[in-house]
Amino acid sequence: MSSAPYTIGVDLGGTNLRVAAYSQPTGILEQIQLPTRLRDGRDAVVRDMCMAIEQLIRNRPQGGLVGIGVGSPGPIELPEGRLHHLPNLPGWDGFELRATIERMLEMSVIVENDANLAALAECRLGKGKSLGADSLCMLTLGTGVGNGIILNGNIWDGMNGMAGEAGHATIWPDGHVCGCGSHGCLEQYASATAVCRMAREAVVGGNAPGLAVLERQNGEFTSRQLAEAARAGDPDAREIFDLVGRSLGIGLAGLVNTLNLPLYVVGGGLAQAWDLFSAKMFAELKHRSYVYRFTDGEIDAFGHRSAKTYVEPAELGAESGILGACLLPITSERGVITEQAQTKP
Amino acid sequence: MSSAPYTIGVDLGGTNLRVAAYSQPTGILEQIQLPTRLRDGRDAVVRDMCMAIEQLIRNRPQGGLVGIGVGSPGPIELPEGRLHHLPNLPGWDGFELRATIERMLEMSVIVENDANLAALAECRLGKGKSLGADSLCMLTLGTGVGNGIILNGNIWDGMNGMAGEAGHATIWPDGHVCGCGSHGCLEQYASATAVCRMAREAVVGGNAPGLAVLERQNGEFTSRQLAEAARAGDPDAREIFDLVGRSLGIGLAGLVNTLNLPLYVVGGGLAQAWDLFSAKMFAELKHRSYVYRFTDGEIDAFGHRSAKTYVEPAELGAESGILGACLLPITSERGVITEQAQTKP
Repeated sequence: MSSAPYTIGVDLGGTNLRVAAYSQPTGILEQIQLPTRLRDGRDAVVRDMCMAIEQLIRNRPQGGLVGIGVGSPGPIELPEGRLHHLPNLPGWDGFELRATIERMLEMSVIVENDANLAALAECRLGKGKSLGADSLCMLTLGTGVGNGIILNGNIWDGMNGMAGEAGHATIWPDGHVCGCGSHGCLEQYASATAVCRMAREAVVGGNAPGLAVLERQNGEFTSRQLAEAARAGDPDAREIFDLVGRSLGIGLAGLVNTLNLPLYVVGGGLAQAWDLFSAKMFAELKHRSYVYRFTDGEIDAFGHRSAKTYVEPAELGAESGILGACLLPITSERGVITEQAQTKP
Repeated sequence: MSSAPYTIGVDLGGTNLRVAAYSQPTGILEQIQLPTRLRDGRDAVVRDMCMAIEQLIRNRPQGGLVGIGVGSPGPIELPEGRLHHLPNLPGWDGFELRATIERMLEMSVIVENDANLAALAECRLGKGKSLGADSLCMLTLGTGVGNGIILNGNIWDGMNGMAGEAGHATIWPDGHVCGCGSHGCLEQYASATAVCRMAREAVVGGNAPGLAVLERQNGEFTSRQLAEAARAGDPDAREIFDLVGRSLGIGLAGLVNTLNLPLYVVGGGLAQAWDLFSAKMFAELKHRSYVYRFTDGEIDAFGHRSAKTYVEPAELGAESGILGACLLPITSERGVITEQAQTKP
């Protein structure tokens, strides 16, 4: 029986586990969402994952499965799919994620860093598709700052899957200590976590009366509240988003100068504050990157239209991780399921 | 007549113009070196270049020429080969280098940034070959800090040839102004020029007696003299090389975190001071890059030998530019000479 080709994607998050069947051009055909049962241990989580995958396979005609992509928080060693020190998945250090899934499922899977998958989805289905760019660099501003790099349509994994950690590029050499052990990482100035920390620091400093009131009212800050305070004109909240913008601008300038890609995408929850940080971000980027200034898409003094570097907010939102996982088997050369494995169940 | 294949490479420098015929595995077959006649204008320089190329072609059997690679200081727009604001080639802004050569020569040529060509040579014939790495990132510490990135054996040009400008990554956001218009670029702390400037600053500051004596004796500093002073124990000279090392470490950490390549090579004249700056460089790199710390080639707690990130001095020296130009036609897809063009003279 000839059956329509589809892939399965898994988004393993610290809170939710999502598994989807996907085909082009339809998109997501069916999705299962479960809580990530971290308390029950890694094997329980992988068992939930495999049961959901098997259910999606049973629900479709036999023989159509092209491959299975699994996104996990990083750092993760590739192509082995071995986890390292994951802040959001405590106790998973050294876990052989790929091997464990494959043993349980009796099928091969491809494992990737979730920030890389978000970048892949944004390239193939989001801003990259909209602008016709097949290379991009994405920064995901969430709890941390994730990063993924797509070159000529494919994820750049580096030699062992650890490429795309520009969230840990040094922006302010003597800046705030980072969970990675360094100081002044981009993540310490441009994540939702960082925004809240900077607000607490401002309150402790005693010169941020509006933020002090906000903290008393709410107990603790959220980056969304702080963005609202900044929009309402609170000068200390505005200053925090100015620093987010400056830090992003310095980080992006390094990436633009190094990679010279057509597109840089900023996603994640904090990207909602684009209106608050983007002016400072672009000012800093222009100051710090002559490559950016040379690629403004304008006609130069010699009558030649230059290439254009786009820096844009992401298009896909929270779906990008699962979409990237679904796209992985049809873009990666790292493993397509064999007919034999596929028809096993 | 069947003839042995060869390429021609050109190294267009601010002082010297070198043109070589090259074949594998022999290497450079014949080389012509001329002064770069900048005072006589761009067309005179290109005419000298074309005459040297034609002479090398006449000296070999007809039909063997595979292609011609031309290295130029950057920034240079590719594949067009159009120059931008070159500090060492004043008056060449907007010059259509490739088109001018091709018109004069009536053959197609491939133009590249000289720092990218040095990286290509280092990858194919130098440290990359020695260590079996087909991807690397090279920093060339000379008058400025050049940078070239090789991914899977090929130059990463970016969208219009401006990739590999990590010499202008911000290291110290409020640091010294750079010729590129930014502040605190790597180039301002890790070039031969920067070392001499820092020595002058130390003398003006009044707290560097040894360097003040050196300046009085010699009129002006060279980075070689300063390295000798540091080796002889002058504390102010040592401090300068410490800052070179720290700045390189911060810059390399950003590159390692972003690219996760197996090899980073440090070349150029100032790399001779490796003994003076490398300890601080590695300390900073370890502090600022968990990707580097995770890729030390050691056996980890789970009995697995990790991939290794090498940071090494370059192997090839001043020959790397011309060798890279010679290699370009046999590694690039951007243009191999047609039989017709080739047999024209």
